[in-house]
Amino acid sequence: MAHSIAADRSSDSNAVAVVVGGSRGIGLAMVQSLVSRGWKGKIVATCRDVEQADALSALWQFMPDRFNVLSMDVCDEASIEEAVDEVKEWTGDSRVDLLVQCAGILHEGDNMPETSLARVDADFFRRNLEVNLMGPVLVAKHFSPLMITKRKKGRVPSVLAALSARVGSISDNGLGGWLSYRSSKAGQNQAMRTMSIELGRRGIICVSLHPGTVETDLSAPFRKNVKPDKLFPADKAAGMLLDVIDSLDTEDNGSFFSYDRKLIPY
Amino acid sequence: MAHSIAADRSSDSNAVAVVVGGSRGIGLAMVQSLVSRGWKGKIVATCRDVEQADALSALWQFMPDRFNVLSMDVCDEASIEEAVDEVKEWTGDSRVDLLVQCAGILHEGDNMPETSLARVDADFFRRNLEVNLMGPVLVAKHFSPLMITKRKKGRVPSVLAALSARVGSISDNGLGGWLSYRSSKAGQNQAMRTMSIELGRRGIICVSLHPGTVETDLSAPFRKNVKPDKLFPADKAAGMLLDVIDSLDTEDNGSFFSYDRKLIPY
Repeated sequence: MAHSIAADRSSDSNAVAVVVGGSRGIGLAMVQSLVSRGWKGKIVATCRDVEQADALSALWQFMPDRFNVLSMDVCDEASIEEAVDEVKEWTGDSRVDLLVQCAGILHEGDNMPETSLARVDADFFRRNLEVNLMGPVLVAKHFSPLMITKRKKGRVPSVLAALSARVGSISDNGLGGWLSYRSSKAGQNQAMRTMSIELGRRGIICVSLHPGTVETDLSAPFRKNVKPDKLFPADKAAGMLLDVIDSLDTEDNGSFFSYDRKLIPY
Repeated sequence: MAHSIAADRSSDSNAVAVVVGGSRGIGLAMVQSLVSRGWKGKIVATCRDVEQADALSALWQFMPDRFNVLSMDVCDEASIEEAVDEVKEWTGDSRVDLLVQCAGILHEGDNMPETSLARVDADFFRRNLEVNLMGPVLVAKHFSPLMITKRKKGRVPSVLAALSARVGSISDNGLGGWLSYRSSKAGQNQAMRTMSIELGRRGIICVSLHPGTVETDLSAPFRKNVKPDKLFPADKAAGMLLDVIDSLDTEDNGSFFSYDRKLIPY
């Protein structure tokens, strides 16, 4: 059942996948994995700066009819609305079957996640909330109307997935630290859960995903104590997350999954 | 054990209680309840606009030696630092035994909590995050250094309590809606949990509190379907929350309590 749903989605040449924050890290690996796993429909990657997205430009040259790169800043609502219009125009359809929200920050410039309360910087705290929490909400606000409105013959439930992190789990929080990141991800988890109730009525499956510790710029300063078998190359992480996405059915709506498909408590 | 801790705190004439957002709603009721229950030490109430705080001004005229009203906006870090300096100067001590964070918004001006994703307004979303999530963090950043650093003979653990709400619980969220408020309160719960780990090492007890549905301006537009026995006058709510606070011991650090002292899952 779950398998056939996933197979239907990825083998449908009219299906549209959108990867938000697709130029780097897990987002870029998601785009690459969709291609390598044989997604038959169209793929849209969004990123803040298209000029800096060399890998995406190369993919576009390789398959311009099925791939597009759009400039979008999840903190800029007007840019999200423009991207939605471009998706509609490019696909000739108001349709998104899979949206994976990968844009997020843990550190930025000289700002590192806080090791103590005394180190909280109000502007960096705001920036975490803006990118990690408000961004996914604004993206969902404008993209979800393109997602499936009811289950029709030959169409399968759309998936709205957001990269979260185990450190966003409140009940699992035994170490403390990273106050702004943890708070933003707990807020994001609640936003996804809240949206899952409204969007679930339309047949959309909303989930939060924990990718594990992945070899990306985001984790680079923080992985020296991670055991080698728990540090995933980005392509492996993306593959595991797409396996989770492929396995989802409507009863999974509103859940928080780890890369190994185990549920994470909120 | 728990009873004697609470009795020690409230009967200590050197103890200092701070109520943030003390001019209205549950915050004002907290101040009134501390007085009526016989808090023997000093009480500080903070609010954005001291000129509008008539009830607090009256209390100050009644007991100027033991009560003070300070202007503080939880979104303005400089105003928090000034309030901390004033507390130190007024008490002649760097000491806070109880801090209750009551400032918060659910609606503001024409902005009502969202009934659907389409109604999300980015600025109102930001405002929720700023007041309900970043505010309590900034308050804790600057006030927690005044709280007990270790358990000494004759001193009992300090309590840092924040008003939260059951609708901030992610796992309990079955209805959806109120996206910005729910997200901000889940983020606040995670911030309190994260801070509880750091501050708990110093003997401070950090908790989030659900007050129930209380007859305040905050709940006014939303309580027509609340059963009469589940709609609490503000003084009753404040009394129940102070009962919970009085019952706390160090093993309760990092928890989320309802007014009836039941634990709420995150």
